[in-house]
Amino acid sequence: MSRIYNFSAGPSMLPEEVLQKAADQMTDYQGEGLSVMEMSHRSKAFIEIIEKAEQTLRDLMNIPSNYKVLFLQGGAHLQFSMVPLNLMPHKKADYIITGNWANKAYLEALKVGDVRIAASSKDLNYSYIPKTKFSDFREDADYVHICVNNTIYGTRFKPDNLPDTGNINLIGDISSGILSEEYDVQKFALLYAGAQKNMGPAGVTVVILREDLLDLLPSSEKDKLPVYLNYQIHADAQSLYNTPPCYAIYMCGLVFEWLKNLGGVKAIEKINYQKANLLYDFLDNSDFYQGTVEKEDRSIMNVPFICKKRDLEAVFIKEAAANGLINLKGHRSVGGMRASIYNAMPLAGVQALITFMQEFESKHRK
Amino acid sequence: MSRIYNFSAGPSMLPEEVLQKAADQMTDYQGEGLSVMEMSHRSKAFIEIIEKAEQTLRDLMNIPSNYKVLFLQGGAHLQFSMVPLNLMPHKKADYIITGNWANKAYLEALKVGDVRIAASSKDLNYSYIPKTKFSDFREDADYVHICVNNTIYGTRFKPDNLPDTGNINLIGDISSGILSEEYDVQKFALLYAGAQKNMGPAGVTVVILREDLLDLLPSSEKDKLPVYLNYQIHADAQSLYNTPPCYAIYMCGLVFEWLKNLGGVKAIEKINYQKANLLYDFLDNSDFYQGTVEKEDRSIMNVPFICKKRDLEAVFIKEAAANGLINLKGHRSVGGMRASIYNAMPLAGVQALITFMQEFESKHRK
Repeated sequence: MSRIYNFSAGPSMLPEEVLQKAADQMTDYQGEGLSVMEMSHRSKAFIEIIEKAEQTLRDLMNIPSNYKVLFLQGGAHLQFSMVPLNLMPHKKADYIITGNWANKAYLEALKVGDVRIAASSKDLNYSYIPKTKFSDFREDADYVHICVNNTIYGTRFKPDNLPDTGNINLIGDISSGILSEEYDVQKFALLYAGAQKNMGPAGVTVVILREDLLDLLPSSEKDKLPVYLNYQIHADAQSLYNTPPCYAIYMCGLVFEWLKNLGGVKAIEKINYQKANLLYDFLDNSDFYQGTVEKEDRSIMNVPFICKKRDLEAVFIKEAAANGLINLKGHRSVGGMRASIYNAMPLAGVQALITFMQEFESKHRK
Repeated sequence: MSRIYNFSAGPSMLPEEVLQKAADQMTDYQGEGLSVMEMSHRSKAFIEIIEKAEQTLRDLMNIPSNYKVLFLQGGAHLQFSMVPLNLMPHKKADYIITGNWANKAYLEALKVGDVRIAASSKDLNYSYIPKTKFSDFREDADYVHICVNNTIYGTRFKPDNLPDTGNINLIGDISSGILSEEYDVQKFALLYAGAQKNMGPAGVTVVILREDLLDLLPSSEKDKLPVYLNYQIHADAQSLYNTPPCYAIYMCGLVFEWLKNLGGVKAIEKINYQKANLLYDFLDNSDFYQGTVEKEDRSIMNVPFICKKRDLEAVFIKEAAANGLINLKGHRSVGGMRASIYNAMPLAGVQALITFMQEFESKHRK
């Protein structure tokens, strides 16, 4: 087996030892005589799996006991709808638009109430994080929504630089930032994240929400929602209202365990900075390549860059793939290249990318 | 490895050779150097996987070309809502209530419009399928909804005995019946099925819908739906509007392939009848055990039964489990036992169950 370095924005790399463990347990989980895929979601063995996954995530992120953790289906897209449908009792919310996903979340909220763009970085193709102050938000807004890490554009709200929303609930789509560095969960009323970047396979979405949010709407309102879109239903049933995506949850549990053994979020944050700094320093010292994002707003997960000679980019992407460095093509709305270097991307992968970039430059410099 | 016979109602058994193949391909899919879980859903390799899964399912079920096949998240529960939200332009629909799931579907539709129970078997705890005639339905109803196979109660609408709804669209929840015997897709406007019985792991739901259903609502109405709940969005994007549950789809593809190699639905139908008849004949000839369902309405997937001495049932379930026959406890709303014998349950599993039942009877007869 020759594994490659996969720089995909998601689904993306998983730790090889996690995949190996899953392979070993595929036909017989811990002597139970069946696969995790075959287990009743009400069985003792599966209840242990989901409870352990939740507990490990709670430990990793320091999730306070007054927050619920849910494992849902439908991706971040379903959360784009569930957030306004459940958390907008006065039908008023403010959104910060830092890219395509933040905008999609905003469009879903528009279907529900009076929704306003409080700030946007659209003017410069989302290459920075707009600065906001408390007075930029409507004080009677039900919440302020942000996309914490912007996968496509490679920007992020740093843990110590989240918008000051005072008493207004802050909601974060943290799909491509979760578990990458230490965020204080208590600064958010609700966080949601698709698994397919830092947690596991596509098909499960983690929602972390403060319990009091469940009381925002009266029961009569909640009862009108499509049942699957009602947070209360899932919270009351501990994510087992209907059959959950059991295997995806099991895989997330293995990834959480891997991260815990590695030293937790503090340890991976250090490695992630090492990887990101290596690449950003290389870009900053290059007159052949160029990063596309304001320095202070750079993501440590997604690193977009261009060749100054733009016509070389298609060749770059193709030759990189031939060298076992795949999925480096940037999103169509940005162009160029993008290296997604999630938790499971080893330092050696970033080093291999830089080596290739140097070789490519030597070859195509003239 | 000692695999057991798992009679769970779902998630349930998968073919062992499918699990083995998945294990073998876990860290490196066909020399691609990565797991299916790690593939971008836009990659060539994954597009091939999803297209092949769809084509094999089309072949297996003879799905006509004017039907779309979608792979969605949220389980049958999300379909309970999506069906009325998308397919009720005149806000009028009729439901046949043959159990708990049919009733849950009905409750979701009630949130959307004028919904009526056209027939129900609640009077005898859903132990039979109510007979209907065309005049039982409102001729201006947008659709009639049925649950084709009732997992909890062990009843089913046979392929040759579906309700006559004339020109009214017939919608079927076929979660526990799909691919078990030959149903004519063209008798339905839309069929939906959670994967975790006859197709693959929990976390993906197959929706098969006639294309003209996408035109029932005007765009202005469709645009108001939560985006994930709009069939048009998924149909236009070939199930790739957002990241689909890639690995669950891959597993379904492997199961479809297994079934095709086995001879398709016609072949498995024969085996399923053999398994079900073996068990039903045994029950019919017993004065110790008893089936709970009207003979002509019996499911070939879920076989509920009781001990005539009801106080023996807890012992039965416990001793069966100790003998490697697990998850035989009936649903709480029926009590007793239930043997779910989906496609992946081998004939040997049913034979082992009957042998155990005979031994248990000898031991506890007095």
